[in-house]
Formats: sequence, structure tokens, C-alpha cells
Amino acid sequence: MSDTQPLLLSMGDAAGIGPEILAKAWQALGVPAVVVGDAGVMRRALRQLGMGLPLALLERPDEVPPPGALAVWEPDGMPGDLLDAGQGRVDARCGAAAARCIEAAVAELQAGRGRALVTAPIHKEALHAAGSPHPGHTEMLQALAGGAPVRMMLANEELRVVLVTVHVALREAIVQVTRERVLQTLHIADAALRRAGLAQPRLAVAGLNPHAGEGGLFGREEIDEIAPAVRDARDAGIDAQGPFAPDTVFMRARRGAFDAVIAMTHDHGLIPVKYLGLDEGVNITLGLPFVRTSPDHGTAFDIAGQGLADPASLLAACRMALKLSGGA
Amino acid sequence: MSDTQPLLLSMGDAAGIGPEILAKAWQALGVPAVVVGDAGVMRRALRQLGMGLPLALLERPDEVPPPGALAVWEPDGMPGDLLDAGQGRVDARCGAAAARCIEAAVAELQAGRGRALVTAPIHKEALHAAGSPHPGHTEMLQALAGGAPVRMMLANEELRVVLVTVHVALREAIVQVTRERVLQTLHIADAALRRAGLAQPRLAVAGLNPHAGEGGLFGREEIDEIAPAVRDARDAGIDAQGPFAPDTVFMRARRGAFDAVIAMTHDHGLIPVKYLGLDEGVNITLGLPFVRTSPDHGTAFDIAGQGLADPASLLAACRMALKLSGGA
Repeated sequence: MSDTQPLLLSMGDAAGIGPEILAKAWQALGVPAVVVGDAGVMRRALRQLGMGLPLALLERPDEVPPPGALAVWEPDGMPGDLLDAGQGRVDARCGAAAARCIEAAVAELQAGRGRALVTAPIHKEALHAAGSPHPGHTEMLQALAGGAPVRMMLANEELRVVLVTVHVALREAIVQVTRERVLQTLHIADAALRRAGLAQPRLAVAGLNPHAGEGGLFGREEIDEIAPAVRDARDAGIDAQGPFAPDTVFMRARRGAFDAVIAMTHDHGLIPVKYLGLDEGVNITLGLPFVRTSPDHGTAFDIAGQGLADPASLLAACRMALKLSGGA
Repeated sequence: MSDTQPLLLSMGDAAGIGPEILAKAWQALGVPAVVVGDAGVMRRALRQLGMGLPLALLERPDEVPPPGALAVWEPDGMPGDLLDAGQGRVDARCGAAAARCIEAAVAELQAGRGRALVTAPIHKEALHAAGSPHPGHTEMLQALAGGAPVRMMLANEELRVVLVTVHVALREAIVQVTRERVLQTLHIADAALRRAGLAQPRLAVAGLNPHAGEGGLFGREEIDEIAPAVRDARDAGIDAQGPFAPDTVFMRARRGAFDAVIAMTHDHGLIPVKYLGLDEGVNITLGLPFVRTSPDHGTAFDIAGQGLADPASLLAACRMALKLSGGA
């Protein structure tokens, strides 16, 4: 991939807000970007938004489109009747189309015909109805990229958080907090932030237990797993610090003491990222052989097609993808 | 207790920042308030601060002191050589004095000679060195009040959080999240906020697991324990709602959707309270037969006696105590 190539924007679920926020964000973005999706669905979005924007259907995603036209590339193998599926509801055809767009975009990225991937929201149930074995984007992308270990990073204007565990019961998350997994997270986070231009990323590691275990009094994971992983990472040249008490480390990172916080659980990490209700939250998959970002919201079926959806998070995801793939 | 009685301010650890922030806060407060502590230690604080404030040593805490003098009441049974213990270090005499001040203040409150208790910071190790069986304020106050169930509330200008579990390993906290304990927390929080003047407190209950368990996919505590407790509470006339996904409920409460959030773990609750780094964080013990608040920081031995300590959190604790004990 190269920074002269276009961003690839996967359409997401055609029945959700993806198409309309893609159209809005595309217009605001001002750099080469191609929607990997269905031309009929994108035309409907432009019409519903009342945007007098022409649509250019490309032969290949890296073709230079006519200036001022929304560039759309349709992968082969798309379902033909997406408009019949309507909007605001689960439909297997939309799930199949969403999956096909992601697969095709990844293939293009791997062939060097795209700069980075930004994914509009998909719907878990539609994906499932289409027979996909993957519960979401992250797992699908990981499989398409050959199974490399990945981690979820959440970022907004003032805080970056990388999660050691994600969508599992808290009981199970505790079991997953191992020296190996924490160390792997530190390596993945360090590599990603270096690629984004930080010479020596300062990584704070949050503890798992209250007061980071208070010397073993409130749990031993800090002593047995997390602190050894921090030492291993430092031995490998990573600026890792901690484990710190979870209740103050995010505040310290927000004030600039660290470039990112490694959080042991989904909610330790997401509570501070979401607390201020910033519209610019971005979800980033680290560890893939290409840059992938997404907005931190879902398909919002309840308002799909009404032109109400805010493209701010998607636009922030596009800008983050540009930044992480080298230069703005 | 009555709102014409003075606030009782326990001195805390004499070697910490307690005495100096008490002197500063007392001057800023402007309502009747008495330091329950050692006159020699308080005189040293005034001298170190360069405050030209006279000190009035009272016979009883509810005596009306001369106007403009720092009111101090010394309980009997205090160690006599506190100044010899110096500042900035752990000393059993300071631990014993801190414990004695708390005991005496509680006895005065229970005898109706005080309005509410505000506690300056104590030091766990000093308390331990003095032979106290209690690891901290909360446990000591609970024992002095006859063992009633208590809960910790943390509050700042924009958020109130009540914790179901506190200082235990996360593994153990999960086990403690029971229907009974969540329901008890809801009763305690509802009663306390009603006493503080809210007619029908709106209580949001956070889940334990990511996405509040996503229908059992990521853990069953929401289904088996938390949701039944919310139903029980509603049946008892409490406006309890949830369980909600932990990662967004605090943001919603901050925006005004709820009066308080019930958090299952120490860090789910404290991460958002501390995230903005507000100096006005206050710790409140709910469930006692009297109002008790404290600042959300410790003894800060490293800066004790230097006049650098900020009284903002202690002052906020005093104002919160006034509010919770009826009117400002």
C-alpha cells in the first residue's frame, strides 16, 4: 500500500446508516477515497440526502475518478437485489453484501491497490443470517489476513486505549490476562504507534485489580502476569510502564503522561474513552498487515435513510486511517 | 444530629497533610465546624502555614467558640507526644490519635452533638502499627455504628457513583455481585439521596460484563443477579433502571440522565469519577446513622508540613456533608 493510493471505504450494512454517512464523509474528506459497495445503494443514499453529487462507478479501486464524483467500486459476487431489502432491518442479502465488500477490499489492499481500510458499520445478525462464521469485523479481518494476533485500539482526541481482552465475560477476561497476552499487546501497540510516526511510544499498562492489586492484597495478576510482561517489553526496547492503578492511569494519559494505555478489560478501557461523549471516537484494529479503522458506533437501523446520522466518527476514522498509514 | 450543630472534622494522621488542609478549609468554610484533634498539632499547622488565626480549645464540641478562632476539641485518651512523631512518616502514636479522634467524633454524633462527620486522611500503616483491627475509615465507622451495611459513594460536580464491591481482587468482586448485595446497594443509595433532598432518585445500574453481558453471551451475572435486583428494587418503589452497558452509562449519567450510577466494581466506578482529574472528588459512606464524607486523597506524607497541600477536596467534602445532612 502507498500513500498515493485511495482509502478504501467498505459500505457496511446497506440497510443501516453506513451508505449515508459514507456519502457525507466522502464529501468532507478531500483526499482520494473509494467506496467499496453497491452503486444502487449509494445512489439511494445520495438521493435521500438530497446531495447533488454525481457517482463514478470505477473499474478498479485505484482508477483515478472524475473530479467531484463519489467514487464507487463494485466487487464481483455482490447480491443484485439490495434495494429490495429495504432499510432499517436485518436482511441476509445485506449481510452477504457487507461481507463481500470487506473481503474484496482486503484483497485489493493486499494487492497494493489501496492505502488503508475504513469500515462502515455492519450488523451482527445480518452477517449471521448470511452464513458468515465471524461475529464481527475484527474476527473477519483477522481471518482474511491469515490469523495474525490483533488488538482493538480505541482513540479519540485526547486518549488512546489498547485492549488486552475484548468481548468475553469478565470472569473469562481475568483468565485471559496472561504474561504472554499482555506482552503481545505491548508489541502490537508499540509497532502500530511507531508506524504512525511516534519514535518511542510511551505505553502505560493499567492493572486489573483495584489499586493494581496493592502488593498482592487485592489479587495477584499484577505480580504474576502483568509486571513480568512489562519487564519483558522493556527488555525488548519498548517504553512500557506500570502496572498502574486502573482508576488514575487514564486521567494521567489524558493529561499527556503517556501515548496510550494498555487496558486489561473491555470496560476499563472503554469507560474513559466514552465518558466525555466525544463524537470522534475511532476503533482501530492493530496487528493486521494493513491499517483498518472504523467509527465506534453501529448501524443505527432506527434512523437509517433519514439523513440524520452524524458522519463525525466515520470522518475521524478516515483521518485516523490517513495518519496511521503515513502522513495526513 | 441537627443542622444547627457543628460539623465535626476528624484530624486524621497528624504526620500527614490533614492538619494543614483542615486549617485552610476551616477558614474558607464559614459555617460552624470543630476540629476533633490535638491542639498542639493544629497550632503547628497554623504556624507552618503562617496563618494568624487564634485557636479556641473547646470543652465540648457543641460549645459556641469565640468568633474567628479555629475551634478544636481534644478527646480524652489522646497520646501526649504527637509533635515528637514528626511529619511525613508512619508513627504508631499518630495512628492511635487518628483512631481516637474518629471514635470520639462518632460518639459525639451519636449523642446529638454534631451535624455530620468529615474525616481528614489517615494512614493505613500507622493505624495498623497502633493495633487497630480496621484497614481504613469505612470499616472502623461501620464497626462503631454497630455493623450496619455500608457502601462507598464517590461524587464530584458532575457524577455520583455508588460501589457494590470495593477493595477486593476482581475475581472476588465478581463473586460478591449477588442479587442481595446489589439490592442492598440500591436501598442504601436511594435512602441516602432521598435524605439529601431528591424526591425520587434516578438510579442507573451498570452491568458487570462487556455490553452488560449481551443477553448472556458474555457472562450471566446480569441475568442471574443484577436484573432480578433491579426488579426487586422497582417493586420496592425505587426508580432503578438497568443493567446498562458499563461503557456508556457513566457518560449518560454525566449528561444528566440519572442521579447516580450503581457500579459493580471499584474501577468501573472510579475510572469515570477520576478521569477528568477534578480536585473536588468526595468520598461518602452511605448506610451509617450519620453523614460522613472525606476527601478522595490520602495523607500525602511527601508534602506534609510544607503548606503545599490543596484543601479543595476536603472543602468539597465539608460542603457535601452540609448538603447531605439537610440544607447548605
